[in-house]
Amino acid sequence: MNVGLLGIGTVGGAFYKLALEQENINVKTLLSRRERPGLECRVTPDINDIINDPEIDCVVEVLGGLHPAYEYISAALKAGKSVVTANKAVVCEYYDEFLDLAKSSGAAFRCTAAAGGGIPWLESLSRISQLDEIDSIEGILNGTTNFILSAMTNSGADYAESLKEAQRLGYAEADPTADVEGFDAMRKVVISANVAFGVSIPKEDVPCFGISTCSSEDIKAFRDAGKVCKLIGHASKKDGKISACVEPMLFDKGSATAGTEGGYNIITLKAKRVMTQSFTGLGAGGDPTGANVLADCISIANGAKGFYTDKAVRSSVDNSVLKQNYYVRTSAEIPFEITGEMGSGAITGKESVSDMHAFASKVRKDGGSIFIAAIGE
Amino acid sequence: MNVGLLGIGTVGGAFYKLALEQENINVKTLLSRRERPGLECRVTPDINDIINDPEIDCVVEVLGGLHPAYEYISAALKAGKSVVTANKAVVCEYYDEFLDLAKSSGAAFRCTAAAGGGIPWLESLSRISQLDEIDSIEGILNGTTNFILSAMTNSGADYAESLKEAQRLGYAEADPTADVEGFDAMRKVVISANVAFGVSIPKEDVPCFGISTCSSEDIKAFRDAGKVCKLIGHASKKDGKISACVEPMLFDKGSATAGTEGGYNIITLKAKRVMTQSFTGLGAGGDPTGANVLADCISIANGAKGFYTDKAVRSSVDNSVLKQNYYVRTSAEIPFEITGEMGSGAITGKESVSDMHAFASKVRKDGGSIFIAAIGE
Repeated sequence: MNVGLLGIGTVGGAFYKLALEQENINVKTLLSRRERPGLECRVTPDINDIINDPEIDCVVEVLGGLHPAYEYISAALKAGKSVVTANKAVVCEYYDEFLDLAKSSGAAFRCTAAAGGGIPWLESLSRISQLDEIDSIEGILNGTTNFILSAMTNSGADYAESLKEAQRLGYAEADPTADVEGFDAMRKVVISANVAFGVSIPKEDVPCFGISTCSSEDIKAFRDAGKVCKLIGHASKKDGKISACVEPMLFDKGSATAGTEGGYNIITLKAKRVMTQSFTGLGAGGDPTGANVLADCISIANGAKGFYTDKAVRSSVDNSVLKQNYYVRTSAEIPFEITGEMGSGAITGKESVSDMHAFASKVRKDGGSIFIAAIGE
Repeated sequence: MNVGLLGIGTVGGAFYKLALEQENINVKTLLSRRERPGLECRVTPDINDIINDPEIDCVVEVLGGLHPAYEYISAALKAGKSVVTANKAVVCEYYDEFLDLAKSSGAAFRCTAAAGGGIPWLESLSRISQLDEIDSIEGILNGTTNFILSAMTNSGADYAESLKEAQRLGYAEADPTADVEGFDAMRKVVISANVAFGVSIPKEDVPCFGISTCSSEDIKAFRDAGKVCKLIGHASKKDGKISACVEPMLFDKGSATAGTEGGYNIITLKAKRVMTQSFTGLGAGGDPTGANVLADCISIANGAKGFYTDKAVRSSVDNSVLKQNYYVRTSAEIPFEITGEMGSGAITGKESVSDMHAFASKVRKDGGSIFIAAIGE
């Protein structure tokens, strides 16, 4: 199968190198503004050299970002080429459009590496959602925040110190906002929920509360209570209504999620027939992610033509249906029933995700301090 | 896709019911000696009504056992029909033959439900082994023994009592030998190793030490040391040599494997590029296993034509290459270096799997008592 490769950064470079070992996968053309001496493929700055090449069967998009990735993927699918991408931003935004285009042209669209890095998570979720009813998905979907929270939990260091260490080791970017505020995990929750429930939900519907206000005092209170704090993306479906959010969550020490540390991700699905299944692995990195992109290509080369779901119904999120107990530490007055305390925080009764995130958002806008964490079951 | 279904027991029954919901999967004919009023498909006692039916694209074999499953699968593949099976006994014994037949006829051969029940383990392992170098696979592959060990660990009950409880609840059969002596897990290790390493290893090469001699005293010693005992199948490749065995193994309390209880399985792979990945889920039961069989059928209906590996080189096992520390409690004299003790057991230096299993086997033949457990890292 001849591949047109868009981008040769960390993931693209690993993909290119791994693809050289595959007899059935040939990177024919690379889209790159710069010349790339030493590569065995043709290098062009013009996307049309790939879209209009009838010998190219599959376009691999690892540019990242919304544009021009959206235009390139759309053009490739319209030209009947299959598309494999690891780009969570563009998939999160245009999922239903891409599925429609793929369906119209009979091409395959795959994005396994867009959530879970090297883990065959979306592939497995897709496999199961075809014949089972998924009740929920939940997991650690961001390695940067997991590294920071692990460091805080294991060493007692505070947030700023742990973030700096993560930046020094290359786990966090200079501007860590997308990771620490939960926006990266949110994109992966949107994509996972789309595959799980056969929908396409707008990312604007998914509230995020990150870890930037988590203090070493919070972490100590959790440890004393036998709990471990993780940044969790979760989505569930109940009575036809979909809830989805990103928020810190507390797990019992000894549970699989609590034990998942550093750059590792763990994602768990619950379904009517297969019950509970969990998937653990590295959620980022060139080799794991590049390998997952290549695996999608091999599936297509082996004849797999399906896309993730044959339906992607535009749906909204209703976070009033999911109610949880929360840990809340805030300078503001808490407008919810308080059933206990943990360190300097209060434990609330069952509150809806929408009410709690609206409250947290208001406190922040008013200039108050707040950290919340849902209490996992 | 028209399916010929061989067998309608627990897994076959669940498969049949789930398949009714799939537009693209039609169970056209069921092989059954008895008449089955109420089923929507044709029922025949003659396998030739399925093999010779040009409308049947795929044969689903869930009879279990070696014969006539072997003859039926071979005949189906020779007739160019794809085959999906959940039968670990027949796949373990005839893996390379089935792959060769599938390759010759261009049919697909899939057996995801044969190891891990409802978990997409072999599917994921196959996906990764195509482009990565697998170093090892290891896991809890048998729910019966995991239920018994969990009961012993959580309640302090002894083996006989826990086995009886497992039998009462339907987790263990009247004759529990295949489960408790590790033969069931061994078949799943053989199949997993075959997919992981592109080989076909003879099951006779894989030593098994089960849990029937595990005492409540052993369990107490493990608990006091912060360890949890699990029956583990593992296989690894080092310097071109494959080791594979089934044996009790000790894990730190708090690890994901230690925390996997009751009927749940967990299987972990280690590979050069994707590093460590784990898969957890129900390892048995009609609905999970039937769903996994159906997912294989849907993959084939969607155009996937590949088989698990395109190579299955006959290879032998060399258990002299893998060395581990062991817990050994025995009435016999221990011929290995002793580096410590745990309860009434001795901790040995690094001993090869082959030496330890040969010793255990000799003690048992001589009428002595022995329980061993490898100490996981």
